[in-house]
Amino acid sequence: MSFSPLIQSLISALRCLPGVGPKSAARMVFHLLERDRDGGRQLSRVLEEAISKIGHCNTCRTLCETPMCRLCESPSRDRSLLCVVESPADVLAIEQTGGFKGLYFVLMGHLSPIDGIGPEDIGIDYFRGRLEEREVKEVILATNHTVEGEATAYYLSELIKSLDIFVTRIAHGVPMGGQLEYIDGGTLAKALSARSPI
Amino acid sequence: MSFSPLIQSLISALRCLPGVGPKSAARMVFHLLERDRDGGRQLSRVLEEAISKIGHCNTCRTLCETPMCRLCESPSRDRSLLCVVESPADVLAIEQTGGFKGLYFVLMGHLSPIDGIGPEDIGIDYFRGRLEEREVKEVILATNHTVEGEATAYYLSELIKSLDIFVTRIAHGVPMGGQLEYIDGGTLAKALSARSPI
Repeated sequence: MSFSPLIQSLISALRCLPGVGPKSAARMVFHLLERDRDGGRQLSRVLEEAISKIGHCNTCRTLCETPMCRLCESPSRDRSLLCVVESPADVLAIEQTGGFKGLYFVLMGHLSPIDGIGPEDIGIDYFRGRLEEREVKEVILATNHTVEGEATAYYLSELIKSLDIFVTRIAHGVPMGGQLEYIDGGTLAKALSARSPI
Repeated sequence: MSFSPLIQSLISALRCLPGVGPKSAARMVFHLLERDRDGGRQLSRVLEEAISKIGHCNTCRTLCETPMCRLCESPSRDRSLLCVVESPADVLAIEQTGGFKGLYFVLMGHLSPIDGIGPEDIGIDYFRGRLEEREVKEVILATNHTVEGEATAYYLSELIKSLDIFVTRIAHGVPMGGQLEYIDGGTLAKALSARSPI
């Protein structure tokens, strides 16, 4: 015994969402069917529209429904500064700090030979093309501080240097509010070796 | 700065799902757009279909896409035993125990005067009609053990007794594996007052 076939299909379909298991999918189904059919219809419509319309920005590769995203189009950004991130969510995180006025390049992933993700999958040709326009004077590598993110940053830094462009990496160390006794050893070692004079 | 308008609408639309806040909605959007567009299309389709087709079983009021649900149609169930529950998920929970062979009546909620939910909203007319067919010999009240669930059970028990039908309430007490020192006072008091000879 289980739910009716259509309820069961909806539960399975909801499980394509990250972090949604069978119990929470069932809870979502009952919530939508019992209390929010309008919300569910709206979700179905917007989801269909988003999936068919959203592609990548021709310039920075972030996700957007127009050929060029709002940041790349903006006349007020500093075009000599290019920040490389792994995902559109990273762009938002950096924008929310309000401290960066350059442009972005979104890799939409990171190098991961074990998963078959090579340089062409992270848009290396677009990236090289962008640098070869010679507008960018500094590239800031802001890939994640993970094994793959570091490897990607290293790979990109070699390419950028070969084009004679200044390249930097965002700082890694103890986060704000971080208490030394609770920080993992790797971060602490990094913070020590990357110490700066005060 | 935020995401593009369409991404932003999809994030808002996903928030109609229970337990989904802005961060997890954004995570879902990127997951769907970057890695699982097929899953997203499928979800949009099934959701639309489910919302337009799923209604209530004519007999037990559970959610299903056919006029009568599979349980009510089944010839192997004991039609003299009727279990009253608050939601379709409760039906599944009881079915999974494998210990109940009767039929169900799903209130699709509970009495809650403060939220304006009265007897007609929990299908009291259907319920009375069902009992007046005189097929049911015992009604088991399995509403939740909450203030509203108890009030609903009390209200229904009065109605059922007035029709001269045997009515029972599922047992409440210490759950399996429950250690006395960690059980709340209300449950423990209930378990003591409802003690049975061994």
